[in-house]
Amino acid sequence: MITQTLIKEFQNKVGRENVFTDKADLLTYSYDAAVLEPVIPALALRPSDSEALGQVVRLCNENRLPLTVRGAGTNLSGGTIPISEGVVVLTNALNKILEINEADMYAVVQPGVVTAELAAAAEAKGLFYPPDPGSQAVSTLGGNVAENAGGLRGLKYGVTRDYVMGIQFFDVNGDIVKTGSRTVKCATGYNLTGLMVGSEGTLGVFNEITLKLIPLPAAQKAMVAVFDKMENASETVAAIIASRIVPATLEFMDNFTIRAVEDYSKVGLPTDAAALLLIEMDGHPAQVEEDADRVELLCHKMGATSVRVAKDASERDSVWAARRSALSALAKLKPTLVLEDATVPRSKIPDMVQAMQDIAKQYDLSIGTFGHAGDGNLHPTILTDRRDKEEWKRVESAIEAIFDKALGLGGTLSGEHGTGIAKSCFLEKETTAATIVYSKRVKEALDPNNILNPGKIIG
Amino acid sequence: MITQTLIKEFQNKVGRENVFTDKADLLTYSYDAAVLEPVIPALALRPSDSEALGQVVRLCNENRLPLTVRGAGTNLSGGTIPISEGVVVLTNALNKILEINEADMYAVVQPGVVTAELAAAAEAKGLFYPPDPGSQAVSTLGGNVAENAGGLRGLKYGVTRDYVMGIQFFDVNGDIVKTGSRTVKCATGYNLTGLMVGSEGTLGVFNEITLKLIPLPAAQKAMVAVFDKMENASETVAAIIASRIVPATLEFMDNFTIRAVEDYSKVGLPTDAAALLLIEMDGHPAQVEEDADRVELLCHKMGATSVRVAKDASERDSVWAARRSALSALAKLKPTLVLEDATVPRSKIPDMVQAMQDIAKQYDLSIGTFGHAGDGNLHPTILTDRRDKEEWKRVESAIEAIFDKALGLGGTLSGEHGTGIAKSCFLEKETTAATIVYSKRVKEALDPNNILNPGKIIG
Repeated sequence: MITQTLIKEFQNKVGRENVFTDKADLLTYSYDAAVLEPVIPALALRPSDSEALGQVVRLCNENRLPLTVRGAGTNLSGGTIPISEGVVVLTNALNKILEINEADMYAVVQPGVVTAELAAAAEAKGLFYPPDPGSQAVSTLGGNVAENAGGLRGLKYGVTRDYVMGIQFFDVNGDIVKTGSRTVKCATGYNLTGLMVGSEGTLGVFNEITLKLIPLPAAQKAMVAVFDKMENASETVAAIIASRIVPATLEFMDNFTIRAVEDYSKVGLPTDAAALLLIEMDGHPAQVEEDADRVELLCHKMGATSVRVAKDASERDSVWAARRSALSALAKLKPTLVLEDATVPRSKIPDMVQAMQDIAKQYDLSIGTFGHAGDGNLHPTILTDRRDKEEWKRVESAIEAIFDKALGLGGTLSGEHGTGIAKSCFLEKETTAATIVYSKRVKEALDPNNILNPGKIIG
Repeated sequence: MITQTLIKEFQNKVGRENVFTDKADLLTYSYDAAVLEPVIPALALRPSDSEALGQVVRLCNENRLPLTVRGAGTNLSGGTIPISEGVVVLTNALNKILEINEADMYAVVQPGVVTAELAAAAEAKGLFYPPDPGSQAVSTLGGNVAENAGGLRGLKYGVTRDYVMGIQFFDVNGDIVKTGSRTVKCATGYNLTGLMVGSEGTLGVFNEITLKLIPLPAAQKAMVAVFDKMENASETVAAIIASRIVPATLEFMDNFTIRAVEDYSKVGLPTDAAALLLIEMDGHPAQVEEDADRVELLCHKMGATSVRVAKDASERDSVWAARRSALSALAKLKPTLVLEDATVPRSKIPDMVQAMQDIAKQYDLSIGTFGHAGDGNLHPTILTDRRDKEEWKRVESAIEAIFDKALGLGGTLSGEHGTGIAKSCFLEKETTAATIVYSKRVKEALDPNNILNPGKIIG
């Protein structure tokens, strides 16, 4: 229960203006980007320094108040949906880039720093922060780390996990835990950094994050390959990987998505194409030229009807702007959009793309498929209306069919959107009963009162 | 207590010939490569399949028998030293490469596979497993993962952690836990893969490990730069990094080490040089040429007296063979060799190299310094005789001085050798009291009887 005395205590810690109790304010924090029931929290707090953040955690634990940390709320698996009697802790006033170390190529940030802001700040110093989740323009690094966010560059550069060198976080008592280092190598203590990445706010509250930066690639080249048969496009993905070329980005878009994107962004995509591949190479200029030539040749050999190489940076930017608008474009078509991200070993992309077609037909649903084909991470997107109960039942069945197909192909339930609330009940399909028991033991040991974002990952 | 009945049970599980009770056998498993007191275990077992391995874990837990898994025993922090009333579980009969998947570029291995064997098997298929700890010719992948082993290529390619995609392991009850995936991206469940890497056998027993492979680099070029002032060499390291070149390997050797290596391996190293840098570039041929030219120029500019580029593969191999012999060469000089691996942000290498000189003088000790300068991971090597109590006291003081210096420069206690027994008591110097409490909670929750390699990491 949140008493007036407790609210006063919170006001003392974070400042009167940073305690929100108004229904209208709280409504804003009741949902994220997943299709799940919103839950209005009892209170929202916005600490603006480390000390206040630690004290908020401590007070919540002492008062057994469930606590959900919220960055930009772009989560796609319900990880940011709070508990009705609980507290939402906002990180948007903890948004300082504390250091960009050029000599040792790392950045230290507070959790509320926006992903694209760090990327831009690094780029200004000739450095590169590769992870680029679709929501990078608004998503926060704290959220990215908590969810182990992916993005378009996973294929060559990996995901958020691959860039987290160290984390300083508050345990449930509000005490500081330090893990990892600012060094390239670190084998000191348990790899709690690894455990924290993707833990969705259930094991601690981030205070500072140290992220690896790398030198900017010297050159880039983007191209769009057009296919009149979908299987030709998906088989081209497998062929590129098989020939040991590692593009920075290798994206797939089916006809359904192409039409939605073109209608939305008018960049001149061929709306009659069965599928497109959007491909970018980066690195040393000679490597980029060579790989681009090989990829172009491969696309033609695999049946592309045309391959268009971006002439300059602005043409390249428009390709990626179009790709990045896919989700928004599809979202306009129907009241409810379910964005899946079941993922397969990349050689299985042709099977997975075909399966999405079959599942759409079987359950009589509109499914647009696009995504990071090069790393096996497709986003089948079901367009529906949640109020239509009969259709919603078919949607739920289709989602399970997608999971089963991905697992059957040696894949995983989630490539980059996290487990959250949405997938926790399916976890045993992929792992084992003992895996869930093991995970629960970790959670119970580190958060005995179950106040840190309860209900996520392990249900 | 290990009764005859229990020994019979173990014999039933793993076969009579795989249960070792002889003192002479057990002595072999009483030590590793760290300078620590040997401990003779009560029993050693060699399971040769998964099922037997799981049953051994279960039996040990039921009988409260401490269990230490042992690969090749090359550990440098005492992680493989057993408990006197405990059991050593050998992995050398669990040494199958279960799969090398060329299309999706991963390998699945049992824990006892030798690192260099996987690297060779991958290379035969045009693939690359980059982590190359000094002991790779004998070390096992299970040990590498348990210790988060590093190597010479950390600078460009990262460490073992960066290649572990998934682990299947036995929890303390002998039940299978599955974590990670064979997909490039995976955000399903907790990142237990991350937690297990570097956990030194204290949280579970590995059954199968899935490792990422990458395409082999197309070209390589190695060179040796000779310096007559040590600080010129260490400042060259910082200058190379500052100019955003990322060599595959960037190794440092001081005069003490050069003389020992030359005496041992007769490859023609300049024994009057104050220091050497051994540098290798790899990647696209154009990139390699360009980087090699820039590095050569930089070395000269920073005062190298000569830079010799390896003419062919055999000259290149002899450079690395010489480097790899450093530890053996130094070990011949005195009865006891203490190999440290305190690590600093790489721009701090000049300070760290200087500090090693100062510490050697201050404590009147022979310290040879070599190692992975390019990733900040030096190996100051103290040559001593442990039986000389007075000198040993100075050695212990020098080790603490090395730790303090590394931490003072923003570094870490261990870059790649692990915490084990050797560094567990220093952990709080680098982290916080709450970090250790947090770590202990994880351990206690997952191993309530404290039978999984007790005493390691958190003491």
